[in-house]
Amino acid sequence: MRTRAAVALEPGKPLEVMEVNLEGPKAGEVMIEIKATGICHTDDFTRSGADPEGIFPAILGHEGAGVVVEVGPGVTSVKPGDHVIPLYTPECRQCPSCLSRKTNLCTAIRATQGQGLMPDGTTRFSMLDGTPIYHYMGCSTFSNYTVLPEIAVAKVREDAPFDKICYIGCGVTTGIGAVINTAKVEIGAKAVVFGLGGIGLNVLQGLRMAGADMIIGVDLNDDKKPMAEHFGMTHFINPKNCENVVQEIVNLTKTPFDQIGGADYSFDCTGNVKVMRDALECTHRGWGQSVIIGVAAAGAEISTRPFQLVTGRVWKGTAFGGARGRTDVPQIVDWYMDGKIEIDPMITHTLTLDEINKGFDLMHSGESIRSVVLY
Amino acid sequence: MRTRAAVALEPGKPLEVMEVNLEGPKAGEVMIEIKATGICHTDDFTRSGADPEGIFPAILGHEGAGVVVEVGPGVTSVKPGDHVIPLYTPECRQCPSCLSRKTNLCTAIRATQGQGLMPDGTTRFSMLDGTPIYHYMGCSTFSNYTVLPEIAVAKVREDAPFDKICYIGCGVTTGIGAVINTAKVEIGAKAVVFGLGGIGLNVLQGLRMAGADMIIGVDLNDDKKPMAEHFGMTHFINPKNCENVVQEIVNLTKTPFDQIGGADYSFDCTGNVKVMRDALECTHRGWGQSVIIGVAAAGAEISTRPFQLVTGRVWKGTAFGGARGRTDVPQIVDWYMDGKIEIDPMITHTLTLDEINKGFDLMHSGESIRSVVLY
Repeated sequence: MRTRAAVALEPGKPLEVMEVNLEGPKAGEVMIEIKATGICHTDDFTRSGADPEGIFPAILGHEGAGVVVEVGPGVTSVKPGDHVIPLYTPECRQCPSCLSRKTNLCTAIRATQGQGLMPDGTTRFSMLDGTPIYHYMGCSTFSNYTVLPEIAVAKVREDAPFDKICYIGCGVTTGIGAVINTAKVEIGAKAVVFGLGGIGLNVLQGLRMAGADMIIGVDLNDDKKPMAEHFGMTHFINPKNCENVVQEIVNLTKTPFDQIGGADYSFDCTGNVKVMRDALECTHRGWGQSVIIGVAAAGAEISTRPFQLVTGRVWKGTAFGGARGRTDVPQIVDWYMDGKIEIDPMITHTLTLDEINKGFDLMHSGESIRSVVLY
Repeated sequence: MRTRAAVALEPGKPLEVMEVNLEGPKAGEVMIEIKATGICHTDDFTRSGADPEGIFPAILGHEGAGVVVEVGPGVTSVKPGDHVIPLYTPECRQCPSCLSRKTNLCTAIRATQGQGLMPDGTTRFSMLDGTPIYHYMGCSTFSNYTVLPEIAVAKVREDAPFDKICYIGCGVTTGIGAVINTAKVEIGAKAVVFGLGGIGLNVLQGLRMAGADMIIGVDLNDDKKPMAEHFGMTHFINPKNCENVVQEIVNLTKTPFDQIGGADYSFDCTGNVKVMRDALECTHRGWGQSVIIGVAAAGAEISTRPFQLVTGRVWKGTAFGGARGRTDVPQIVDWYMDGKIEIDPMITHTLTLDEINKGFDLMHSGESIRSVVLY
């Protein structure tokens, strides 16, 4: 069949909206009609050419929601008509990683997904002249129709609006999951969030849900403050207005009883390796945990004195918020529908597929939190 | 009173054994007759002048065992005649750190201890001419008699031999505790230990006690192999004999089911920041934990790509093996007396106080695992 898609033909260029060929689902695969997709910094990282593992031509997009239209042989967990969210981190429930009970990083289809291919080593997309088009993060939600492995779709309730829950396919789950699954923040904690973009806002609402007492936001842009407060931030620090952001956080978290100070948890949502170091070092001696969420530039390295770790700080990271997609994503959709979390104020722009490049412009100018393409 | 002690008069010089003055214990303090003390790399780090926080003149030594001879006003937890192990990490059970239930790094007397002073801001030791001599790590076990705060002594059973259990005051607890308290290694795990000196051997026996399946030792010296095997090592790697030690460990830990490979836990016992990086990067994607035990050179920094953490590895450290001294040290003494752990083969040399500088020579030449001074 044919479908309309925004294709990344080569690095550094705008996407081109065009008709492409799409083969039907093979064994263990499903075809999805994408109803809405978010535009994420990771898509832009690859589009721009900065991603050393980027492959072209490709159909980007990994934050979608849609409806199953066809299933391949052997598919049992979803059927046509089911509402689903594509998962760039699948959940096969059978590989060493899924069975470890220690990670969400399913490895069942990792090798082929990294090469822009379906598990059988081929692509379902091609140009009208037959040139193969690569898949992206196993999702390619910048196409109106796409094909995914069955293990890479989360079935969700049918009354949830596609234009909001698509964001659960990446940003919402990453931010909230970092708090709940990776850091396991407890009631009464003091936490710091570096970077108050979309991921940062979701970390904030994760912290509010987890019952944190002090939720400090750090951003170079004062304009981020009102929205961050809306999502739970209790204190704001602009590093431009203080000499040393680490010391500022340590002082802010001191109490009459605890004169050592430091955050119980910190989260880097900037991708800046210097900020990652500050995020570690502002945590509390003895037990502070710092979680890296942001994707750093190719080749960039984090560093610190080992004394920071020997005196009890823990440095960790998270991918897709530590969430097992098929198990945890439907629950997050429920939380949204039940009003436990908010998404609507973060969807600042909705676009048509033809306007998709405007979404990247809005991201770069800092005007949008999240732009969503509606098919 | 007067006591004999080995005094570090200035950085980089041998210790000098001499008579010094020792004041009796003040409120909340106890005087201990040290019966035996180990000589640890940390003592040498300070003695040599490499420790930027070293203070002179000082009486070094922090790995001792002895008998309480006198208690100051208000002391209730020990009495003259009690056998004790001095604790460089005290356990007050009342400070924010002790009450956090998240760390062993009691902060009750941290400021004064770091300055070589008792909690009231003065020293108990002085030269015969009255010049103050500083305490070291709150212990100063290179003196036949010493004074410590009550919160910095662990009361232990009286049938345990001083010349062996003194090692529990630092090396044994650090190594075993890193496994049990910090990494919380579970039965069936695969672990790697970098550096097979005294700490490394104790990590090995901790791993054996924790029920690890695969215990890989890494050292540049093949001669370390027999003793390491005695303490539980199942596989040995000499980095000189392989191209890439990280890849070697990844390959060794692969199974027919798990073709990703990597250690569940790794421990750095070298103090070398490059080794610390290898120790992190050889752990398993998704859940590997690496624990830094070694003390690095002043100013040295660890580094890695954040991707290592984002894909699920955790970087942490340990001080005194995460052990709460007054609570956990008596239990480790019991384990020794019950034969659950071994110490005797690691005490390779016993010396008199007059021979103490020979202990540092034996350490440098690699002849000793642990030298112990018997008073």
